[in-house]
Amino acid sequence: MAIPKLTAKGTSVANKERVDTRVERTRTTVLAHTYDLLVQDGFSGVSIDEIARRSGVAKTTIYRHWPTRTRLLLDACSKLGVNLEIPTQGTFETDLRQVLTDVAQRLENAGWAKVLPSIMDASERDPDVAKVQTLLQTIWAAPVVRIVEDAVARGEIRPGTDADVVAAEALGPLYYRRWFSRQHIDPALLDRIVTNLCRSLTDAR
Amino acid sequence: MAIPKLTAKGTSVANKERVDTRVERTRTTVLAHTYDLLVQDGFSGVSIDEIARRSGVAKTTIYRHWPTRTRLLLDACSKLGVNLEIPTQGTFETDLRQVLTDVAQRLENAGWAKVLPSIMDASERDPDVAKVQTLLQTIWAAPVVRIVEDAVARGEIRPGTDADVVAAEALGPLYYRRWFSRQHIDPALLDRIVTNLCRSLTDAR
Repeated sequence: MAIPKLTAKGTSVANKERVDTRVERTRTTVLAHTYDLLVQDGFSGVSIDEIARRSGVAKTTIYRHWPTRTRLLLDACSKLGVNLEIPTQGTFETDLRQVLTDVAQRLENAGWAKVLPSIMDASERDPDVAKVQTLLQTIWAAPVVRIVEDAVARGEIRPGTDADVVAAEALGPLYYRRWFSRQHIDPALLDRIVTNLCRSLTDAR
Repeated sequence: MAIPKLTAKGTSVANKERVDTRVERTRTTVLAHTYDLLVQDGFSGVSIDEIARRSGVAKTTIYRHWPTRTRLLLDACSKLGVNLEIPTQGTFETDLRQVLTDVAQRLENAGWAKVLPSIMDASERDPDVAKVQTLLQTIWAAPVVRIVEDAVARGEIRPGTDADVVAAEALGPLYYRRWFSRQHIDPALLDRIVTNLCRSLTDAR
């Protein structure tokens, strides 16, 4: 049975699409301004008042889309550092080197590197934020997990390799440099991580 | 020339010591309450008003000892997680395993593990806090650096080993689990770190 293209009140599909587009544009505007404020002031520094002022979207409209400040912030966080490329053309070693080089570059330049500690801080006190942070980390670790799984599937590294453990071993030292010791992530460190992981995952098979 | 034991106004050495002791007690009380509040509310959540209320020490007195809120917080931070034991009795492998087991235990239980993200967050915006955070990390990494240096001195691991790199490789994955992926630091991960570091630092000499 064909679904009528017009409602009883004459709202056409084209009109519905225009409304959807406008709603989508409002959401995108609010999220973009929220993201900018997150990078500038961190998770705890962002207020709905300031987002409304900057975006020109009324507070009531913002609250219609996101019932709480936390929900809006978490939605904006999910935009942080996405679009990580996953190389799948090379060997485990070249793929891993490419991913870690990319992560190191982002850690030293991307806006989310400045925001993340404020999310981690909020996570210590708010289980909802902690859940989202864990999810974000799953997204950021996905390229490492993927190349481990591919390399296992190709028979290149040991079957049963725990990709989560490899992610901790590969990303942990880079994160340590960026956020804890606040030292430059030098190529020698990347080299050691790649070499040692390759050796420990291919040896003793 | 002997320094007079009494001042013109008759303040005895014993009196001077009593004053010093009282001053010291005030400082200790304020720092202890600041530390507790840091663990509870994080770096940005602590106010001098609340510290004064809890400690019973007047705000004017607090400001006489620490000219700014930041100086007081940084002073309290320097108490975080100190007294790390440095094992120096075993081999590089047994010493490293003991240090990492100890760190893993502290990461999952110590109060400073909850506070650190708030300090990291403040570091992103305040260079003075960043300097203190780097210093704190130097203190926390000291046991790893020390056992690397000792093992090099004994000829057990490769000469010229960069202890800072080893600290990043050893501690990074544990920190990753505690603060980023928020997963348990399981003994299998500790095992892999110790085994791989030992192999990469003793091989190919």
